[in-house]
Amino acid sequence: MYKVEVHRLPMGAPDDLSALVALLDDGTIDAGDIIAILCKNEGNGCVNDFTRGFTTLAVKVLLSERLGISREEVARRVALVMSGGTEGVMTPHMNVFVRRQVADRGAIPAGEKRLTAGIGFTRDFRPEELGRMAQVREVARAVKEAMADAGITDPADVHFVQIKCPLLTADRIEDAHRRGQTVAVEDTYKSMGYSRGASALGVAVALGEIPESAITDEKICCDWGLYSAVASTSAGVELQKCEIIVMGNSTESASDLVIGHDVMQDAIDMQAVLRAMRCAGLRFDVLPDAQQLSRIVNVLAKAEASSTGSVRGRRNTMLDDSDINHTRSARAVVNAVIAAITGDPMVYVSGGAEHQGPDGGGPVAVIARAE
Amino acid sequence: MYKVEVHRLPMGAPDDLSALVALLDDGTIDAGDIIAILCKNEGNGCVNDFTRGFTTLAVKVLLSERLGISREEVARRVALVMSGGTEGVMTPHMNVFVRRQVADRGAIPAGEKRLTAGIGFTRDFRPEELGRMAQVREVARAVKEAMADAGITDPADVHFVQIKCPLLTADRIEDAHRRGQTVAVEDTYKSMGYSRGASALGVAVALGEIPESAITDEKICCDWGLYSAVASTSAGVELQKCEIIVMGNSTESASDLVIGHDVMQDAIDMQAVLRAMRCAGLRFDVLPDAQQLSRIVNVLAKAEASSTGSVRGRRNTMLDDSDINHTRSARAVVNAVIAAITGDPMVYVSGGAEHQGPDGGGPVAVIARAE
Amino acid sequence: MYKVEVHRLPMGAPDDLSALVALLDDGTIDAGDIIAILCKNEGNGCVNDFTRGFTTLAVKVLLSERLGISREEVARRVALVMSGGTEGVMTPHMNVFVRRQVADRGAIPAGEKRLTAGIGFTRDFRPEELGRMAQVREVARAVKEAMADAGITDPADVHFVQIKCPLLTADRIEDAHRRGQTVAVEDTYKSMGYSRGASALGVAVALGEIPESAITDEKICCDWGLYSAVASTSAGVELQKCEIIVMGNSTESASDLVIGHDVMQDAIDMQAVLRAMRCAGLRFDVLPDAQQLSRIVNVLAKAEASSTGSVRGRRNTMLDDSDINHTRSARAVVNAVIAAITGDPMVYVSGGAEHQGPDGGGPVAVIARAE
Amino acid sequence: MYKVEVHRLPMGAPDDLSALVALLDDGTIDAGDIIAILCKNEGNGCVNDFTRGFTTLAVKVLLSERLGISREEVARRVALVMSGGTEGVMTPHMNVFVRRQVADRGAIPAGEKRLTAGIGFTRDFRPEELGRMAQVREVARAVKEAMADAGITDPADVHFVQIKCPLLTADRIEDAHRRGQTVAVEDTYKSMGYSRGASALGVAVALGEIPESAITDEKICCDWGLYSAVASTSAGVELQKCEIIVMGNSTESASDLVIGHDVMQDAIDMQAVLRAMRCAGLRFDVLPDAQQLSRIVNVLAKAEASSTGSVRGRRNTMLDDSDINHTRSARAVVNAVIAAITGDPMVYVSGGAEHQGPDGGGPVAVIARAE
Repeated sequence: MYKVEVHRLPMGAPDDLSALVALLDDGTIDAGDIIAILCKNEGNGCVNDFTRGFTTLAVKVLLSERLGISREEVARRVALVMSGGTEGVMTPHMNVFVRRQVADRGAIPAGEKRLTAGIGFTRDFRPEELGRMAQVREVARAVKEAMADAGITDPADVHFVQIKCPLLTADRIEDAHRRGQTVAVEDTYKSMGYSRGASALGVAVALGEIPESAITDEKICCDWGLYSAVASTSAGVELQKCEIIVMGNSTESASDLVIGHDVMQDAIDMQAVLRAMRCAGLRFDVLPDAQQLSRIVNVLAKAEASSTGSVRGRRNTMLDDSDINHTRSARAVVNAVIAAITGDPMVYVSGGAEHQGPDGGGPVAVIARAE
Repeated sequence: MYKVEVHRLPMGAPDDLSALVALLDDGTIDAGDIIAILCKNEGNGCVNDFTRGFTTLAVKVLLSERLGISREEVARRVALVMSGGTEGVMTPHMNVFVRRQVADRGAIPAGEKRLTAGIGFTRDFRPEELGRMAQVREVARAVKEAMADAGITDPADVHFVQIKCPLLTADRIEDAHRRGQTVAVEDTYKSMGYSRGASALGVAVALGEIPESAITDEKICCDWGLYSAVASTSAGVELQKCEIIVMGNSTESASDLVIGHDVMQDAIDMQAVLRAMRCAGLRFDVLPDAQQLSRIVNVLAKAEASSTGSVRGRRNTMLDDSDINHTRSARAVVNAVIAAITGDPMVYVSGGAEHQGPDGGGPVAVIARAE
Repeated sequence: MYKVEVHRLPMGAPDDLSALVALLDDGTIDAGDIIAILCKNEGNGCVNDFTRGFTTLAVKVLLSERLGISREEVARRVALVMSGGTEGVMTPHMNVFVRRQVADRGAIPAGEKRLTAGIGFTRDFRPEELGRMAQVREVARAVKEAMADAGITDPADVHFVQIKCPLLTADRIEDAHRRGQTVAVEDTYKSMGYSRGASALGVAVALGEIPESAITDEKICCDWGLYSAVASTSAGVELQKCEIIVMGNSTESASDLVIGHDVMQDAIDMQAVLRAMRCAGLRFDVLPDAQQLSRIVNVLAKAEASSTGSVRGRRNTMLDDSDINHTRSARAVVNAVIAAITGDPMVYVSGGAEHQGPDGGGPVAVIARAE
Repeated sequence: MYKVEVHRLPMGAPDDLSALVALLDDGTIDAGDIIAILCKNEGNGCVNDFTRGFTTLAVKVLLSERLGISREEVARRVALVMSGGTEGVMTPHMNVFVRRQVADRGAIPAGEKRLTAGIGFTRDFRPEELGRMAQVREVARAVKEAMADAGITDPADVHFVQIKCPLLTADRIEDAHRRGQTVAVEDTYKSMGYSRGASALGVAVALGEIPESAITDEKICCDWGLYSAVASTSAGVELQKCEIIVMGNSTESASDLVIGHDVMQDAIDMQAVLRAMRCAGLRFDVLPDAQQLSRIVNVLAKAEASSTGSVRGRRNTMLDDSDINHTRSARAVVNAVIAAITGDPMVYVSGGAEHQGPDGGGPVAVIARAE
């Protein structure tokens, strides 16, 4: 029987692990219990965002020293998911997922579901596999592995699947070309979307949201009617495989926390955020009060610019802005909408929601303390 | 006796005046009644934002042809205030202020205040005057002129003062240096803040919010405790003087509209937006419903990054982001917060709120149809 | 018999036509003789660069007033080619092409070729035609029209073909989708490349550099072995058709000027620039001296990032930089290389050289005074 | 007696040390002989450029493991100078300075000066000291220390002084304010210039180029007539003190290399680059041929936008461009000018040349193999 905890810790810079070090030093967290770290990094969240790799290296160095294992072994043991981009008022921070064996559920009523989490890894992908069915299938396999790791059997109990996936760089495309292979897309920035999209469809396949047979290479990043309601995928230059964190609720969990989710239909869909809060157990009529808000551990959401170039029939310039990538704008907007409700800008919003919720929208999950 | 109307019109590009042309063609607007046009332009809102000048030229050409007067005469008659930056989901649009003489107030109850508006212009400023007391004093003079034009005598009836002001460019700084003069600041981007700040303090002086004697060159863009609660100023490269629009309510107005305002304490201050809506006459308990929201003609707000680098004690990276100017981030955030409430991203948010509301916050005004 | 002049005029802003106005006022230029204006505008040169449209409007207003014709008639008579992006030390400027009938060639030796220029226009393109064979064929037709207008019959006498072409915006893509059409590419920024590429291949077809049968939709922006050595194409949001300026030499021209060209193999190919100078008649051994350089009227070049992500085997980050579009970087580099030789940063470098010279390189032309 | 070597190694990413690892593994470099590493990193070179810290961490981890010492001890022993920004075609790379004791100078003629290098460190600076005389004086002290370390006594033998210096962040400014202190400048991006400028003036004081008494707080980043001809300073968020590398020639050095320098008067001053090449011993008349160019180990230069907004009387938009910081543009230009000559884009150009060479120009040094 597992007890899962989530520690949300502010970061002063990509290598600022001082809040985590403090919790390790005072015994709040045992380094060996960490199963995943999900960061919101302050880079541009695009191709050349090296803040993700920087944090990854810093975490590996820290944990390898605390655990007395190699940095490679850390990477095999802990899912390190770095998501770039803290535009607007969003606060750079990390979410440390800690899981430990406990004997029983204590006072938790039998049958009451509580938060659990599990992790999984795909194999390394070759450049020509990214954004194509090869990636969809391998991600689906690894998501099931992570569900098993979390002790979840019913896909309906999965409320958020966070995946970190690779992208194409000029070098990697060159490599594919040298071997006579094509890639899904030549544009490095755009490859992030293809990798995110294929990963999200892998989640949808694993959870039975979409049958694998309904997906083809051509539909990836094209048929936006296909999507997962719980996938959150993020691409980064610092890895070649996918790292997966599955979050859900289980009657076997001894956690003090619970997770709920909903789907934002567009970037300003405040009501979906409120529904996700209710789904996670917050009690309120129109807007939650300070006491209820204080139960929130974090809100996790996906953001993207609508492919129509408009929201509620009103034009915006995100897609036509050649100075600021639209993922950056979308993150700023969704974070602001959530922060306006929670009163706290330190919530996790990740950009590029291809096949993650409907076009222009995305999943939103709330992790809260049970009452 | 005046009747003031405000037409909010979407723009497909900086020179897209098709919505205005349609209203001129169908007789809804008489070109001669236009007193001001307030645009939200889709440029970067910074030094090299030429969308403002582009719209200005397009409007001058249109109105000069419709009115049979020169483009220079159009500029003397109509306040053309272009504010750059439609980050996030904000919709590029224009607000056309129309004012015409009417015989009486019709069914409006005596004593009930309704929207009025007036305009004013300063003289051209020399580069060395920008961001200094010379600008404060001249703006104060012109704001009083605009109040008189609006028929407002009590400063408490003023709810929003929109000013377009000049900035320094490399050329203009050179010009000052050649004449042996210093400028308030050498950095062209930063000069926008000084000009906005001095203009806002001019409003505060005119309205009696701050005595002129309390302000010095040194306090401009330094002592953030000094601010106006209704000033909204915006800098642009396309002009050398300030153009001013005063908006307020009056028992002498025959308008169907009314204006209210409040002050956002920070970028996610949703409650201030709601208070401004109530101030403009919307009736609701926690959140306005669709019927009440439909009364809104526009919301006008100022946005800026807090100088502390944080909001509600949470760090953000707006000030340290060397790729995206913080004014751009701030506009995306405040627009998102307002749009989440109104359900409409076509609201006016202008960046750089120096001396306009408290540090990190800014005034917000709502123009709504009276019931 | 024609005499063609080229006036290179600095601009202080996109609507600064003061240098042109001065030449019109002092009689140096007769407004009716202007056949083309080729501008280097100070916008970002990408999708949302409205400086091009701004200059276009300003020029149309000026010439319509000087010539007593409508702005539409100006656009039909004069090729207005605006190319955005003056990165690095590049100086915003315009090149005014003036052509007038003269009785004879004066002292120019018979058989000596001198500069001539002609213009042409395509029809408006639908979104679904851009970047495809429909565009290639129509551009080829219009280039031949422009050659005829210039009095050039031998394609070998053509040294530079400047084309301004449309791009896709979110709105235009939506329009195609509504009519059940696909577009060559969904990404608005990338559509600029497709339009430039198809236009360049149209030049190659017109001049017999490539047979039309060798080109297919699939090869556009894919097979970089296909290119024109004299095409320079530039995309902008402000037009729906292509505007074409053909420059070459002719024994029938009475101009004081001559044009030459060469092809840069990569962005730092200084020797190609020097060869183009020699081709235009400059005399020097290793580097031209100040006297020879003073004969140059302008240098016109194309720039682009190599698709390999490297120059001379050395990696660069232009393609992976998500903060600055690679066309912007490429323009800064090529301008700097040329300016280092000429000692004058006011030379014309346009970005995005798809099918214009080899991958990573581009044509470079020099217009110089004959000795 | 020292032998100094400089290894210029390409980097595929900020943490790509594979080229260095290869040289350590094959015995070409002994880790204990490394005295300094000077990197050209692929970040934006501005405030939020974390590629510098990323490389620093990666190098510390590598060397601590190779040398069996702590990462802190590595930092005390080796000057790690990371300079951000590889705009245009510039190649990210590192320069590894290796110095080892040798018994004699071998076949080097007595009296012939060869390359030597030394390092020094200042104490940590408080935020309120940056950009002021406190920084100038402490840097001057540490430069003399580094000269002594290099075995140079005559300032005329110093050809390049590379310094990495701190900058102000929102956090650090807040810290100063909390302690009742002012800072030299509130703008974090601008603080980089003040720190670079004060460091450069420290070099000038140490080398006797400017008497300390001629410098005041007010003249820093204001009186551009004060400058060093050999200082190259670079600011980064990852350190609180200055790290200094002095390079020069000495009759006591057994190196195969020699260094020379000159001063570029502006960003396109090709002749200064050529003079620096001659100063380093390259033999050529107008331009060096391939054989002479092959002797070059690296070219090190500073770049900056002229404060006048123009180069050779021609306007540019670098200072008015609010989307791209002018330091980024300036690096692209100067790198392109040098690469056009050398045929190799992997040369070191660092931005922001405050008090390093004349306004708009900067020092340029060439390290070459002696014949």
